[in-house]
Amino acid sequence: MQQLLKDAERIKSLEIQGATNVALSAIDFLSSYAKRLEDCCTPDEWFEKLYEAEGILIGTRPTEPALRNGLTYILKKLETTKDNLNADNILELIDSYKNEYKEMIQNSKKKIAEIGARRIPNKDEFTIMTHCHSSVVNGILLEAKRQGKDNFKVINTETQPRLQGRKTARKLLKAGIEVIHVVDSAMRWVVNHYEVDLILIGADSITSEGTVLNKIGSRLLALVAHEEHVPFYVASSLLKYNPKTSFGTLEKIEMRDPKEIWEDPPENIEILNPAFETVSRRYIDGLITEAGIFASSHVHFQFTKLYPLLAE
Amino acid sequence: MQQLLKDAERIKSLEIQGATNVALSAIDFLSSYAKRLEDCCTPDEWFEKLYEAEGILIGTRPTEPALRNGLTYILKKLETTKDNLNADNILELIDSYKNEYKEMIQNSKKKIAEIGARRIPNKDEFTIMTHCHSSVVNGILLEAKRQGKDNFKVINTETQPRLQGRKTARKLLKAGIEVIHVVDSAMRWVVNHYEVDLILIGADSITSEGTVLNKIGSRLLALVAHEEHVPFYVASSLLKYNPKTSFGTLEKIEMRDPKEIWEDPPENIEILNPAFETVSRRYIDGLITEAGIFASSHVHFQFTKLYPLLAE
Amino acid sequence: MQQLLKDAERIKSLEIQGATNVALSAIDFLSSYAKRLEDCCTPDEWFEKLYEAEGILIGTRPTEPALRNGLTYILKKLETTKDNLNADNILELIDSYKNEYKEMIQNSKKKIAEIGARRIPNKDEFTIMTHCHSSVVNGILLEAKRQGKDNFKVINTETQPRLQGRKTARKLLKAGIEVIHVVDSAMRWVVNHYEVDLILIGADSITSEGTVLNKIGSRLLALVAHEEHVPFYVASSLLKYNPKTSFGTLEKIEMRDPKEIWEDPPENIEILNPAFETVSRRYIDGLITEAGIFASSHVHFQFTKLYPLLAE
Amino acid sequence: MQQLLKDAERIKSLEIQGATNVALSAIDFLSSYAKRLEDCCTPDEWFEKLYEAEGILIGTRPTEPALRNGLTYILKKLETTKDNLNADNILELIDSYKNEYKEMIQNSKKKIAEIGARRIPNKDEFTIMTHCHSSVVNGILLEAKRQGKDNFKVINTETQPRLQGRKTARKLLKAGIEVIHVVDSAMRWVVNHYEVDLILIGADSITSEGTVLNKIGSRLLALVAHEEHVPFYVASSLLKYNPKTSFGTLEKIEMRDPKEIWEDPPENIEILNPAFETVSRRYIDGLITEAGIFASSHVHFQFTKLYPLLAE
Amino acid sequence: MQQLLKDAERIKSLEIQGATNVALSAIDFLSSYAKRLEDCCTPDEWFEKLYEAEGILIGTRPTEPALRNGLTYILKKLETTKDNLNADNILELIDSYKNEYKEMIQNSKKKIAEIGARRIPNKDEFTIMTHCHSSVVNGILLEAKRQGKDNFKVINTETQPRLQGRKTARKLLKAGIEVIHVVDSAMRWVVNHYEVDLILIGADSITSEGTVLNKIGSRLLALVAHEEHVPFYVASSLLKYNPKTSFGTLEKIEMRDPKEIWEDPPENIEILNPAFETVSRRYIDGLITEAGIFASSHVHFQFTKLYPLLAE
Amino acid sequence: MQQLLKDAERIKSLEIQGATNVALSAIDFLSSYAKRLEDCCTPDEWFEKLYEAEGILIGTRPTEPALRNGLTYILKKLETTKDNLNADNILELIDSYKNEYKEMIQNSKKKIAEIGARRIPNKDEFTIMTHCHSSVVNGILLEAKRQGKDNFKVINTETQPRLQGRKTARKLLKAGIEVIHVVDSAMRWVVNHYEVDLILIGADSITSEGTVLNKIGSRLLALVAHEEHVPFYVASSLLKYNPKTSFGTLEKIEMRDPKEIWEDPPENIEILNPAFETVSRRYIDGLITEAGIFASSHVHFQFTKLYPLLAE
Repeated sequence: MQQLLKDAERIKSLEIQGATNVALSAIDFLSSYAKRLEDCCTPDEWFEKLYEAEGILIGTRPTEPALRNGLTYILKKLETTKDNLNADNILELIDSYKNEYKEMIQNSKKKIAEIGARRIPNKDEFTIMTHCHSSVVNGILLEAKRQGKDNFKVINTETQPRLQGRKTARKLLKAGIEVIHVVDSAMRWVVNHYEVDLILIGADSITSEGTVLNKIGSRLLALVAHEEHVPFYVASSLLKYNPKTSFGTLEKIEMRDPKEIWEDPPENIEILNPAFETVSRRYIDGLITEAGIFASSHVHFQFTKLYPLLAE
Repeated sequence: MQQLLKDAERIKSLEIQGATNVALSAIDFLSSYAKRLEDCCTPDEWFEKLYEAEGILIGTRPTEPALRNGLTYILKKLETTKDNLNADNILELIDSYKNEYKEMIQNSKKKIAEIGARRIPNKDEFTIMTHCHSSVVNGILLEAKRQGKDNFKVINTETQPRLQGRKTARKLLKAGIEVIHVVDSAMRWVVNHYEVDLILIGADSITSEGTVLNKIGSRLLALVAHEEHVPFYVASSLLKYNPKTSFGTLEKIEMRDPKEIWEDPPENIEILNPAFETVSRRYIDGLITEAGIFASSHVHFQFTKLYPLLAE
Repeated sequence: MQQLLKDAERIKSLEIQGATNVALSAIDFLSSYAKRLEDCCTPDEWFEKLYEAEGILIGTRPTEPALRNGLTYILKKLETTKDNLNADNILELIDSYKNEYKEMIQNSKKKIAEIGARRIPNKDEFTIMTHCHSSVVNGILLEAKRQGKDNFKVINTETQPRLQGRKTARKLLKAGIEVIHVVDSAMRWVVNHYEVDLILIGADSITSEGTVLNKIGSRLLALVAHEEHVPFYVASSLLKYNPKTSFGTLEKIEMRDPKEIWEDPPENIEILNPAFETVSRRYIDGLITEAGIFASSHVHFQFTKLYPLLAE
Repeated sequence: MQQLLKDAERIKSLEIQGATNVALSAIDFLSSYAKRLEDCCTPDEWFEKLYEAEGILIGTRPTEPALRNGLTYILKKLETTKDNLNADNILELIDSYKNEYKEMIQNSKKKIAEIGARRIPNKDEFTIMTHCHSSVVNGILLEAKRQGKDNFKVINTETQPRLQGRKTARKLLKAGIEVIHVVDSAMRWVVNHYEVDLILIGADSITSEGTVLNKIGSRLLALVAHEEHVPFYVASSLLKYNPKTSFGTLEKIEMRDPKEIWEDPPENIEILNPAFETVSRRYIDGLITEAGIFASSHVHFQFTKLYPLLAE
Repeated sequence: MQQLLKDAERIKSLEIQGATNVALSAIDFLSSYAKRLEDCCTPDEWFEKLYEAEGILIGTRPTEPALRNGLTYILKKLETTKDNLNADNILELIDSYKNEYKEMIQNSKKKIAEIGARRIPNKDEFTIMTHCHSSVVNGILLEAKRQGKDNFKVINTETQPRLQGRKTARKLLKAGIEVIHVVDSAMRWVVNHYEVDLILIGADSITSEGTVLNKIGSRLLALVAHEEHVPFYVASSLLKYNPKTSFGTLEKIEMRDPKEIWEDPPENIEILNPAFETVSRRYIDGLITEAGIFASSHVHFQFTKLYPLLAE
Repeated sequence: MQQLLKDAERIKSLEIQGATNVALSAIDFLSSYAKRLEDCCTPDEWFEKLYEAEGILIGTRPTEPALRNGLTYILKKLETTKDNLNADNILELIDSYKNEYKEMIQNSKKKIAEIGARRIPNKDEFTIMTHCHSSVVNGILLEAKRQGKDNFKVINTETQPRLQGRKTARKLLKAGIEVIHVVDSAMRWVVNHYEVDLILIGADSITSEGTVLNKIGSRLLALVAHEEHVPFYVASSLLKYNPKTSFGTLEKIEMRDPKEIWEDPPENIEILNPAFETVSRRYIDGLITEAGIFASSHVHFQFTKLYPLLAE
């Protein structure tokens, strides 16, 4: 158990980053923990301990549905083989389920890239705007480029305080996509002065009402999109849906280290560094997922249909 | 003339900064130029040359009404003494008019501080938000503090890419005012999560329709204010009004060096760095000026009344 | 039949009040009616008469889905045992189905209280606003208090002309919840001057498009919520859904006695006293039901899934 | 001075009501005070004492510009005759200036009635909505009726907690005008269900930005007008303008006795009873004054032109 | 194949018009094509050729879901009998499936007329506005009239450049329905001056996000409805849903012949004649379909449930 | 007098068109009338008759401020020479004042063209949209072209039912300006699909609140501009201001012949053909006049300053 707490700490401290990495690492930590248990106990006792471990691991990152869904997947699958479970096969099984989950994530990204790329037409001067860095959004843009669509350019924000926008810019430029780069506060200016055809962002989490949590600034951009009537889409795997929100559980906004904003601030100043903000479904024209494109209020029903095991 | 062009270049290159400094320096350059002319010519020829010089100096910063109004003031005043003007007294006269203009600016700031401070009530938990750094806005906040108002705090943005927000924060903290500091993209989050009672920004320029030009991000903040129904005020001297806009002259948006945003950018990226953006009068609840508080569409009429000499 | 019409009149005249009471009483009246029929006839004739009675009872309150759903439940259940139905067991069966329906209502309220209470976070100064009196909304607030959440307060309106807001205030105060009370017309003032975090109302009826009918003033409050960007939720059992609306049936707005507003009015005045008004789904952030929280446009699908017998 | 304080108390305690009454009474109290001073002192000492008295009297009702303007009028007029002022003529002069002020008020109401009545066309089914009781609004409606316009009807709200709406209803009915009466919370329902052509309210005070203070519920009604695109006008004498607001002075919202709302409230409840709320100029299509109809942002300029003595 | 291409051209050239006609003709062309193939080949080869033909026929009108759904229906049904398919029965089968599809369309229209007519209440002065000509909308209005509802009138636009509004007007007048007719640009004026209770239009196509494509001017009318808070409904068979849009396929806007607008235009002018425009689900209060009334974002789920064969 | 009534009829019947023509013709008719009076009477009687004639002429076109202002100008000027007025010089004087008025109109158009043209920048791809035909708007566009600005294009609507848009298109094309032409109902589509930088329309009349009356469709276009945040300007001479509106006089909307819309309509149809609609100042970013550019609420003050004689 002590080792598990140490492992959990590695996730909590942001040593491990990226929704997929975090989910897979947590499964590994659960596996190591299972290994350490080995022949300790009856299957029922085993499950009791594994569920306890799951709670600890989920607690490290309360706003990471992919982590929660990953651990749920492993345990639900183990339950189906409960009667034949033993110290000999459990690690193997966890590993095999982990691979299944990994593949689910990868397949979902591939599917979204295909679907999303169809929304970029083959015409002159199509302009897409994005904010922060999202591997799913990048997947769509790179797939469109791969298909030979040469007519689009991307406007992106630098995304203070961690400048993830630069990462996005570099990846797109490398693929030969034209990039226009602005400071965050130029959001409205750039939408107002350029004919932006589509705004496309990723998601850190989705709730049962269709609310999306994403990088600070996302709601501001949604507001701009709404004011200027620019289509606003969110591209995300359904695995970012947290089914517990359907039963009232609140998604929390993580407050990060003020030093990210001002390393050597004057005394007495209070610096607020929220990581995310919420975007109401009112501002979202569509959610692009592995199950297709639809209004974000349908996320619960699509999730339940595609991943019944995870939907309780 | 060559010297004047050199001097003009110093203004253009941003070596000289701040609306008041720029105006006063330009007057000095005009004065030096006049000195160099000395007994060259008849009064009429003199004026011809001085008007030419004025045109050059104004051209260095097309969005600086205080500069334009300063030079206009000097020349209009000289016109009133045209008949007695000579090489002996012209420099003295320019200097004296320059001091008058300087005093006009200082008086306007003092008046605005007094008027504006009255809008900060003596009650608990009054929260003011600002963006960028404006000496006029700071004047109001410091005056309120000086009067013993202890109940208010200020939220300010860091204001990328030049971080003028830090300058604002430092000055307010030094005066003992409570400061909350956020990244620019957290604008809406902070207005939504804190009970902001007043948003207060400065102005770089004002047009005859009541449109305000101010730091990039100002229009974005105005949009947030509008959405959240937070009173949005602009504090500015009437000397920031450009009377030429009444006759159709367009205010230009200065595009600054991309290096301010990304010093060592990847190849082929296009970085846009607009200095200002426009805020329509629709979003402005009131303009706080040396002539009182009023809807910004009245700026032309108030300017004409207070500074008839500058109004053509 | 005459007795049934008399019974129906008791519901119509508002002698019997509250959605649950009305539904259960109507079932009792149906039962008495069935008793009076006794061995009159064949099962088919029986059902014919019972359906006729159902129509009469539903007609007393066209805007009471819980009443309609209750009677539908009884008759649908009776249909399932049609072959074994006889004068000996029918009353017993109706009684037993009535208890089932009653339990369905109670369970739904309990579930909603649990789910809804999770939406009230454990932090300082959380403020909830409500309008009129709703047992479901009160259930949520009391459950949160019962769980030891002490940080929230409730703003409520007096709700003219019947002052149901006082009933709400009294119940909450009794449970030790802090209450702020205002006149109805102060709705916007109070949302503007206090940091309201959540607006929560009940429902009298819901339609297939996700429109909610509730106490007059609800749409006005929704408008305020929309303008001020305060989350606006409706808490209601799915049994308040009228599945007939899916097929075009219109919900009617009941006009009540003008005397409720002005007992001794001057001659010739026309006093309008609408009981309800409609709130479009556009203004509703989420519907809190026994099946979870979701956008109100999904009500038909959730209802069909949870209560298949009542759907169609 | 003690008597003056007693007199002031009568205004403060609402024993004296109505903007005009309050203004005229305050002038009387100033007169009595002047009488008691009689030959005490030099003219300069006199003025000093009178200004002190003015301050006390204005302080009784900080949101009553008509009171402030009335006292200012008397004192400004006295100043013009300062040199000839003596114990013999001062009371007479005050009385004569009071009559002038009274006449100014009456003329302004008559003028507004004429101008406003022209806005009610002679066509079928013109519907006007109002809130609370305003003698100026009533003046317009009665004038239109007097001119033989028979086609219009008036919708009015009861205006809790003091039911001033009933007073309005009674006066209009007495003149033979058709009246529809609703509870305050039915505002939006009634605008949505009836074709309202014009919303017309009075004003308690106007500020230099064109903001109107009026009965609680006025801003709510303005919001409804805005949402439903119904023209929203304010009818008011310019004497309700407070010129001090131009220099930053804030208008205060009076909080009245909770007993007006709930005579015998439960313990621990907090009842808020704001008398007024502010209506931003954004929501006001036009201000109908004795100087004509115009956008409310022009109030300062019209006031200054019509009543130069009162402006500064 | 050459004949098929000729047939396809007849659809493309608009020689064949009306969604139902186009769908049924395309099925006939597929049938003729199948006939010409006759005993050419194995069943597998047959299907290959038929799918190729389907692709060509769909390509003639990319924005005609009823056409696509019709051909899909035939082929999916043929697949179910693949094993017994032969040159003797294939034409018979296609014909029989065509009749099934035709009946599906007719039933859907009849069902919509019944459901929609219930939304027109039996009260005085109910006013419905429509745009262009839609057989589904007309079906609802005529059904309501047939039921004896005499209280409603219809406002319709002439719908330039093809004046389909006149066709609508003639049909309604013939049935004795009162019609008010205006130019397209009077849309807002008429909604503002008449109490319009319902706006009702048809659809050419619906996407998975609930966006509707309909005659140019529809989005403009939706904007007016939104501004004036008039309920805005779309009546359409679910067979107008294009399930491919769920996977990113974009609906295209057809640009028609400029001569429709100006037969003999001056040189160098560019005339744009878009046939349709998109209406976002935000503006649509409800979709009236053969499966009931619901928010348009549910179209994919209702389609899948009612027409599983067409949903892939 | 009979001849005057005949003349008046020629204006009423639209035989005479265009604001300037109508004004000048009315002056001519007044002159002829004066001629017919000749030595009938004393100056006072003369004026009585002339004022009567003025009333008749103004009555022919209640929504033509230029007509009203023209006749007012003549009579006010005659009043100034009343003492020397006689049968010998009156016709001469009227003629000379008519020329002055004509010149005032021409000067105002020239000034507006200069001011307005400055608002069209010298950059690539500047797009202006207009509606109907306005000589003032055309004046601006042609002046810009004359100055060598080649970068702009104009989108215009055909403007049913009289197709004035074609007149606009022809004039601009003739000057070599690029024109895009659409049907009226494509307004929003075209603003949404093209980057429109400026919307510019004329005015038939302006009221004291800053409301503009212009061709039907103007308010619809203003709504589109508002939704899409496109700057919306009105170019008009101040002589289109009707100073009577300041005192409550309502501007009337002229209803024109239904035959303009449908020459041979079916029986029983009601065709509405409003000539104008009103555009609230809320939608107007600026009024471009001979006195400069300003918010339209200032029209009364600018008119009074520039044309004191006409302002009563």
